This record gives sequence, C-alpha cells and structure tokens, in this order.
Amino acid sequence: MGEVSAIVKERRSAMKFQPDVRISNEELEELFQLVKFAPSAFNLQHTHYLVVTDPKLKEAVYEAANQQYKVKTASAAIVVLGDLDAYQQVGELHQGLLQLGVINKQEYDLTVESVTRFYEEGGEAVKHDEAIRNSSLSAMLFMLVAKDKGWDTCPMIGFDPQKLKDALNLPDRMVPALLITIGKEDTTKQRPRGYRKPVSEFVSYNTL
Amino acid sequence: MGEVSAIVKERRSAMKFQPDVRISNEELEELFQLVKFAPSAFNLQHTHYLVVTDPKLKEAVYEAANQQYKVKTASAAIVVLGDLDAYQQVGELHQGLLQLGVINKQEYDLTVESVTRFYEEGGEAVKHDEAIRNSSLSAMLFMLVAKDKGWDTCPMIGFDPQKLKDALNLPDRMVPALLITIGKEDTTKQRPRGYRKPVSEFVSYNTL
Repeated sequence: MGEVSAIVKERRSAMKFQPDVRISNEELEELFQLVKFAPSAFNLQHTHYLVVTDPKLKEAVYEAANQQYKVKTASAAIVVLGDLDAYQQVGELHQGLLQLGVINKQEYDLTVESVTRFYEEGGEAVKHDEAIRNSSLSAMLFMLVAKDKGWDTCPMIGFDPQKLKDALNLPDRMVPALLITIGKEDTTKQRPRGYRKPVSEFVSYNTL
Repeated sequence: MGEVSAIVKERRSAMKFQPDVRISNEELEELFQLVKFAPSAFNLQHTHYLVVTDPKLKEAVYEAANQQYKVKTASAAIVVLGDLDAYQQVGELHQGLLQLGVINKQEYDLTVESVTRFYEEGGEAVKHDEAIRNSSLSAMLFMLVAKDKGWDTCPMIGFDPQKLKDALNLPDRMVPALLITIGKEDTTKQRPRGYRKPVSEFVSYNTL
C-alpha cells in the first residue's frame, strides 16, 4: 500500500496478464469497500460493477471485445455499468439525511423534485452522459485502489456494446461505460510508458 | 501526503469553501504533473483543463452554474473539457514509440488507421462519449491528487453548457464534461457524508 503520488505514477494500463492468476471475491470486496466512496452527481451512485470470472462468460466477453488477448488472461473482466435510471432512487438515497435531521422535510422534497426534474427534462442524452460520466469517475478510483493492493488493470472500450449486453443479459437501463481487465501484469517485453503531453499542452489559465 | 486508502476515505465533495484562499499556478502545476498519468483510450489524452481564477470570468462561470455559491468562494473553478477531435493527434502521439523502435512502421500505420476508423465510423456519438469518459477518468485522478496535497474539490454538473461555452469562448470541439471547484473547505456546519450503498448492492458476480 503506497502513497497517492507513487501509485499514480506506478499505475500503467497492463498490456498482458500472467495467465492462471485468480482473484478472490474477498480481494475484490476489499477494493469495492473503497470504491464506494467515489463521488457521484447528487450522490446517486449510478455505477454498477459486473465482475466476470466464470470461464464461459469470460469467453463471451472476449468475443464481444474483439478477441483481445488480455481478456483471456486477466483474472477477471469487469464491466463497469452506468444506470440510466439511477435518479429514480433519489428519495431512498437521501432518506438518511432526513432521518438524521441534517435536512428537513421541505429540503428533502425539494431535492427529490429538482433531481428528478434534472434527469427527466434532460432526457435520454443527459441520462446517458451521466451514466458514462459517473461510471468513469468510479472506474478511475477502482483502478487506483486496485494498483494500491497490487493488482494491474486496463480500461478498455474496444468492445461491441450490443454483443456484450446480449452475452451478459444486461437490461437496457445499464450502459456499459467501459470494461476493466484486472490481474497481475506479465511485464516481460513491457513497452515503455506511452508519451504524455507536457502540462502546458493540456492546461490553460482563464482562456483556451 | 498520504496513503491511497486514507485519501480515498478522506476526500469528500466540498459543500462550501473558505473565501479568499488563493491557489497558485505552481500549486496547480504540481497537481497536473500527476494528472498527466491518467489513462486514456489509445493514449489520446482527450482531456483539457481550463482553470478559471480571473474574477470576471469566475463570475461568469458562477452565472452559468446556476449561481451555486461554491463557485464564488472556491479558489478556482476548473472546467474539465473533452476534445472531440483528440483522435486526430493519434499519429503525433505515437511517433515516440515508432522512433524508439518499440513499434515498427507497419504497426504504427495500423494504429493510426484503426484509431482513426474507430472514431470516424463511430461518429458524433462515439466522439462525445469518449470526451466525457476520458475526461471523467482524468477528473477523478485530479480530485484525489488534489486531496493528497491538501485541496478540497467538488465535481459539478449543474451548469448550462452553452452559457459556459459562451462565457469562456470555448470551441465546439471542446465538450465541458464537468466543472470542478477547488479550494479549502469551510467545514463549519459540515454535513455527515452522504449515504453509500453496501457493496452487495453495486457489485455482482457473473450475472446481474
């Protein structure tokens, strides 16, 4: 377990995994116990993780992911899903603050109403963006926490979303935001880290 | 500076900031030197940060963000932008690997061609999702690194994208994925942390 800056620098997207390394549900649970602290819009916690370790299902994910070899050798393929209907839980998720007296009934009702309006007036486009955005925030946290516990990851978008949904029987409300392969990296023949732009090329002050 | 698990637990979205706290460009630079290690699809580094500290521009961001008070009191309002045209830099960004001999000319050409095809065949929808997704991955890294250096943040989506684009003169290719306010939290009257679902409610194994 290490310091934030060290882990950020050490984490690299794995190109290849050591085959036959297993990750237990207990080890994953430990990661998710930290992932739950990821921020989300209105604390709606849009993100759902579907961990695929079953060999037959993993093979189907491999097929949906254009037969990328790292899916085959990863200890697990994790589908990061964003729930288009997360906002419908706004009342439930804010009950606690009401019960603790942190907010009163009027504030509670206003929250429920304004959050519901935000998603319903925004329509499919807003719900979709929110699913992608909040899942991606959560996914980054997952990858850092995983590295901290000695696991390598690779975020992947090269998959056929429909094939993946069919293979895993995902309901329409669950948008696959990305796929994360996790395991122990096979660092033989590891490439140098990809080039990074200098800060001055991706940060501007006050005007672009 | 702390350990990953401690920082993940300590980081909370700030509700209020202490007014009149300044953040220097040097302090921000230190954060961005770590943010550059964020992963991105095909290493395209889609994310651009526009740091707004100029009082007049910050006022305009405050207006675009529905006059949310935290924009006023934050040390900076940072617009996290996703570049719809990031893929057009694929050749440039992979030159290094070619020059180092990590990939040969044929592999280089194949990368440029397949990445370009991925975005051009995917069209506006894929470019848009990619902008949101990659910026959000980067933004989460930014918020953790900021906390690690003693800065509090709040990710925000409650703003009018068109107003924000007009106020800051953003080109159409730059999609505001989210707004991050940064500063030192005013923890007087701090609420308890928002309720988090137990892991069993957001993680499934093999089937949803």
